[in-house]
Amino acid sequence: MTHLEKIRYKPISVKKILREMKDISEVMIDLAYSAALFNNADLAREVMELEERVDTLSYLLNMNAMIAARDAGDAEALISILTVAAATNEISDAAADIAKLVLLEIGIHPIVREAFRRIEEQLIRVVVKPGSKLVNKRIGDLDLAAQIGVDIIAIRRVKKWIIDPKDDEVIRENDVLIARGSPMGIEKLRAMAEGKEVVIEE
Amino acid sequence: MTHLEKIRYKPISVKKILREMKDISEVMIDLAYSAALFNNADLAREVMELEERVDTLSYLLNMNAMIAARDAGDAEALISILTVAAATNEISDAAADIAKLVLLEIGIHPIVREAFRRIEEQLIRVVVKPGSKLVNKRIGDLDLAAQIGVDIIAIRRVKKWIIDPKDDEVIRENDVLIARGSPMGIEKLRAMAEGKEVVIEE
Repeated sequence: MTHLEKIRYKPISVKKILREMKDISEVMIDLAYSAALFNNADLAREVMELEERVDTLSYLLNMNAMIAARDAGDAEALISILTVAAATNEISDAAADIAKLVLLEIGIHPIVREAFRRIEEQLIRVVVKPGSKLVNKRIGDLDLAAQIGVDIIAIRRVKKWIIDPKDDEVIRENDVLIARGSPMGIEKLRAMAEGKEVVIEE
Repeated sequence: MTHLEKIRYKPISVKKILREMKDISEVMIDLAYSAALFNNADLAREVMELEERVDTLSYLLNMNAMIAARDAGDAEALISILTVAAATNEISDAAADIAKLVLLEIGIHPIVREAFRRIEEQLIRVVVKPGSKLVNKRIGDLDLAAQIGVDIIAIRRVKKWIIDPKDDEVIRENDVLIARGSPMGIEKLRAMAEGKEVVIEE
């Protein structure tokens, strides 16, 4: 959104790009609905960051597919890949449209909030402060799902996104965590990320 | 897709329409990816049925919003509703684009299947045959999640869709069930729907 640079061709696995586009587009929908439900500009901005990432991936995928196609048979075989990629891109654009409502301060009509209210689990975005106990911890060791009922669904590290991080992923200072959980659980995660003491009830 | 009829204005709760559009569009994404992954035309056809439903809901929502808006202030307040509805419609269209690949027998490239293979839980579509033990049972009483590890995410009853059915929903003859679960669990559900004996291990 904010910076525009020429996207240059890189030879890159089409399978990896497609998987990343699919994973990101699914997270974006949840983020966008949560941004609308809670009128949360931070979440909406993350949606816009992800949309930019999906656009970049889409260009890379299309360039790689064009280079891979040598004849009509190749082109026919590859068309399903481009179609699926275009569909994930459409989903990403739809999520961004919802996020823009929040960022443009158009105001979310109460009916939208009521229609979405069934979402029991909330999403948050928290920045891991330098003093936080989360720093340098493996996600698997933190076991946040069992401890506080919260699931980290994505990490943004400056411009790099890690969707659905694995147990061996190590949290670093200034990571942006996107997490899902009960209202109480996510408040605990927020406190932990901000370096506050958190009492975990047994 | 197959039949076209004029959609007439009905006064209907905008909140209910929006919620249904959101719920359906989310189920459609899962269905479309599963249809592509397993090259399953039955699932793809259900996606197309749902797309038709979302289109109808979209018309009804827009008509109701237009009638509700009396002045510029109303129109501004209502625009977020139309934008969110349009976004769910875009998501629905994207899912339909994927489903069409399966129905047009374009062939799903192996890379698409590999990119999606991480989906451990499969979706199926089964028709409840008249002799099945599922007939006239409450979903809550069947307790399929605990018994065979399967979750019914939608029911289609002729043209009516019940998304995320509640525990007190009663399954009827000829219901089309869309369910999610492990490969073994869904084979058990298929057998139950077809009226075969199923041994549930303790």
